[in-house]
Amino acid sequence: MIIADRLQSLGIALPPVFAPVASYLGYVIDDGVVYVSGHGPFAGTEVIRGKVGGDLTLEQGREAARMTALSLLATLQAGLGDLDRIERIVKVFGMVNVAPGFDQTPAVIDGCSDLLVEIFGEAGRHARSAIGVAELPFGIAVEIELIARLRG
Amino acid sequence: MIIADRLQSLGIALPPVFAPVASYLGYVIDDGVVYVSGHGPFAGTEVIRGKVGGDLTLEQGREAARMTALSLLATLQAGLGDLDRIERIVKVFGMVNVAPGFDQTPAVIDGCSDLLVEIFGEAGRHARSAIGVAELPFGIAVEIELIARLRG
Amino acid sequence: MIIADRLQSLGIALPPVFAPVASYLGYVIDDGVVYVSGHGPFAGTEVIRGKVGGDLTLEQGREAARMTALSLLATLQAGLGDLDRIERIVKVFGMVNVAPGFDQTPAVIDGCSDLLVEIFGEAGRHARSAIGVAELPFGIAVEIELIARLRG
Repeated sequence: MIIADRLQSLGIALPPVFAPVASYLGYVIDDGVVYVSGHGPFAGTEVIRGKVGGDLTLEQGREAARMTALSLLATLQAGLGDLDRIERIVKVFGMVNVAPGFDQTPAVIDGCSDLLVEIFGEAGRHARSAIGVAELPFGIAVEIELIARLRG
Repeated sequence: MIIADRLQSLGIALPPVFAPVASYLGYVIDDGVVYVSGHGPFAGTEVIRGKVGGDLTLEQGREAARMTALSLLATLQAGLGDLDRIERIVKVFGMVNVAPGFDQTPAVIDGCSDLLVEIFGEAGRHARSAIGVAELPFGIAVEIELIARLRG
Repeated sequence: MIIADRLQSLGIALPPVFAPVASYLGYVIDDGVVYVSGHGPFAGTEVIRGKVGGDLTLEQGREAARMTALSLLATLQAGLGDLDRIERIVKVFGMVNVAPGFDQTPAVIDGCSDLLVEIFGEAGRHARSAIGVAELPFGIAVEIELIARLRG
């Protein structure tokens, strides 16, 4: 229960699991690799919507990326039973709902990346892209998908 | 020939294979995983172009996503020889060519996800993201790429 | 040193490695698969910024995609020690920073795909998507991420 302990010592509580309402799943495990579906900044009834660089500041975008990371982890915790089963975070694909001209998308997605390293240490470091997209589902500010390797 | 039979019983005929005209391939198989290139709503000479939420309604976008799924399957059928070789659909990345403000991208990509489940059953359920992008090749309405696991 | 020789015979020198300045890495190797982070058209202090189809022509966009491929290879060369360790390029995800209405994104990303085939031959052919996005980090013209298989 190393990660669970770390979450507790960091004062982090995972949000409720975001449940897809369609023919897709929150995650799929394939041969020791878990592919987590795109998640957003949902924490129960709370959700961060809007365009970063317009409706929202960079700092609010970064907070949305951090919330999104927690939602991804909530899905993994529920699916795996124990976050210690994660050997390492392999890749993060971060999409920011941007206002025209806002190009500081890496600084936004750092809200996710930094949290993953805070929680998993070196095993939390990952390959990444961080882009600005035209629209995201339901107007959410950030969407992130993730690939992780599970322990043998 | 389970999937071929199911396609027939659903009255579904696959379109001609969409052939990339550049240095890239329609799919690559790596160690039992098939990565299918981004496909669009092509069925022979028919193609759905335009921005969903502007030129096209949500329903037309969903139909474009369904056509795109069929184009993906045509590539897999041609490449694998038999769709029964697919053990499961692992992941779908759905990109919708959106008009400003259109954020119901999950409902659009459902046109693909629902068809995959209709055809493959539980093995068709997948991890997914569904985003709105600024532009797609040749103005197509939807582009989708897919990862699937092949049988041993 | 097959690839190193080919680079030399093509008169290609790799640029300096682009170093991520955050909690993420330039690449991650997972079980023989290398996931390379999104890279841009950086070559030392030189960088190509702007929107293709607006600030930049298609041809300039294609050149940016070629530069981006070289930056990806610089990261792989530094990380792997030897590009001969690459068995094949599996997948490329190409994102073009587009002006409204510019939809010739495949022709832009060909700048990357063509170079990979020039260097790696058939092993350089890959699955691919090539989309137009609203904004890219620091206003770069193109961002590309890549998956490759390493030799046993």
